[in-house]
Amino acid sequence: MMKIAIIGATGTLGKAVVKQLASRHEIIEVGNTSGQYQVDITDINSVQKLFSQIGKIDAIVSTTGKLHFGPLQELTPEQFQVGLRDKLMGQINLALVAQHHLNDGGSITLTSGILTEEPILQGANATTVNAALEGFVRAAAIELKRGIRINVVSPTVLEESLANFGAFFYGFEAVPASRAAMAYSRSVEGAQTGRVYQVW
Amino acid sequence: MMKIAIIGATGTLGKAVVKQLASRHEIIEVGNTSGQYQVDITDINSVQKLFSQIGKIDAIVSTTGKLHFGPLQELTPEQFQVGLRDKLMGQINLALVAQHHLNDGGSITLTSGILTEEPILQGANATTVNAALEGFVRAAAIELKRGIRINVVSPTVLEESLANFGAFFYGFEAVPASRAAMAYSRSVEGAQTGRVYQVW
Ligand SMILES: NC(=O)c1ccc[n+]([C@@H]2O[C@H](COP(=O)([O-])OP(=O)(O)OC[C@H]3O[C@@H](n4cnc5c(N)ncnc54)[C@H](OP(=O)(O)O)[C@@H]3O)[C@@H](O)[C@H]2O)c1
Ligand SMILES: NC(=O)c1ccc[n+]([C@@H]2O[C@H](COP(=O)([O-])OP(=O)(O)OC[C@H]3O[C@@H](n4cnc5c(N)ncnc54)[C@H](OP(=O)(O)O)[C@@H]3O)[C@@H](O)[C@H]2O)c1
Repeated sequence: MMKIAIIGATGTLGKAVVKQLASRHEIIEVGNTSGQYQVDITDINSVQKLFSQIGKIDAIVSTTGKLHFGPLQELTPEQFQVGLRDKLMGQINLALVAQHHLNDGGSITLTSGILTEEPILQGANATTVNAALEGFVRAAAIELKRGIRINVVSPTVLEESLANFGAFFYGFEAVPASRAAMAYSRSVEGAQTGRVYQVW
Repeated sequence: MMKIAIIGATGTLGKAVVKQLASRHEIIEVGNTSGQYQVDITDINSVQKLFSQIGKIDAIVSTTGKLHFGPLQELTPEQFQVGLRDKLMGQINLALVAQHHLNDGGSITLTSGILTEEPILQGANATTVNAALEGFVRAAAIELKRGIRINVVSPTVLEESLANFGAFFYGFEAVPASRAAMAYSRSVEGAQTGRVYQVW
């Protein structure tokens, strides 16, 4: 049995990951405004405070991160910052702090998404950020100490999110969040590092 | 004959790209403190000013961008920002502004590097930023209007840079800057878009 903190546990994807892992492990549910603990991943001080509150753990999973969607012709640097600050640096902040708070052999699992590989109109910020996260994981994997592993899960659009985002994803096969959640189990309960688990 | 602005024209790589293209095209050499025109790519206002100074052009090439190198264990968000603000957002700023100043059928060519695919110790910022740039190019390529193309060149370490960075690149085969420069010619004078031209 591992002690696993899930950041974004109260979201669409996070709830499914909690369900997948809760029968075998002790889960700490972290949200921004909800959950057992609160954190703002865009603020490294808030991330540090979270880890000092929850103490030593075996795994962290991140299922959070905001992106900007909008036409390339009108994109501003400020809009582009949304994804860089939140989904990208937010998750990197989690990894940078977590590496010092995980038990030996612990793991870090982040979230990217299918837009890394399959760009869509208005998705330049998303593809950039997702690709960056996959790069970060590839590089961090060779540098983490004490047997700590790091992977990233890249889900296609979730069935549960089609009502909100479906118009961006015509022709994409959706998966239920419960299926995406299985990849988080493979990352946390498996032994690989530096991997992108694509779920589509 | 095209009118081509090369941002970073006065650098190690940029000088070779100028040499490769100058016999066939009109080259505008842009640097930060040197060159015919000056720009700070991290400042969108400076980029906008550059394009209003140089007027309509057929291609821009970027051979610039700073990164942070340092051990993952000690990386701070501020250090990580170096690459995000300079090599990543700097080049994205160039592309966002250039799309409105290029002639129909024009092209944008950015620079990433081999660390996208081959991570090294202390290179998490570099791999993240390079991967992000390749993602951006993949996404922007499907959204640019008026036949404007975008590609990225990913060189291995340059022979000319071994004296400075060689210790990071043991076991990497270096190439002369003149060989890397040929890929910029393929991007600018060819017809593909959304491509990563790897030179190694
Ligand atoms: N949904 C999809 O179809 C899909 C597909 C592929 C990839 N993804 C990716 O999966 C991730 C989660 O997506 P989702 O649809 O499950 O999102 P969601 O339903 O909006 O849930 C977001 C979660 O993140 C938390 N959160 C928000 N801002 C935060 C912050 N600043 N610091 C810490 N936690 C914060 C929220 O907590 P509160 O509830 O307390 O605000 C919530 O638990 C995103 O990175 C998304 O890009 C989603
Ligand atoms: N060198 C290599 O082995 C190698 C290998 C793979 C990839 N790369 C990538 O290739 C790019 C160029 O590398 P390099 O070694 O040729 O660099 P470099 O010799 O240091 O040249 C940098 C160039 O960028 C300009 N510059 C600096 N700051 C700028 C700013 N804020 N705004 C606009 N221009 C600015 C400089 O102008 P001033 O001279 O006026 O300051 C100079 O022309 C980098 O992205 C690097 O990561 C290099």
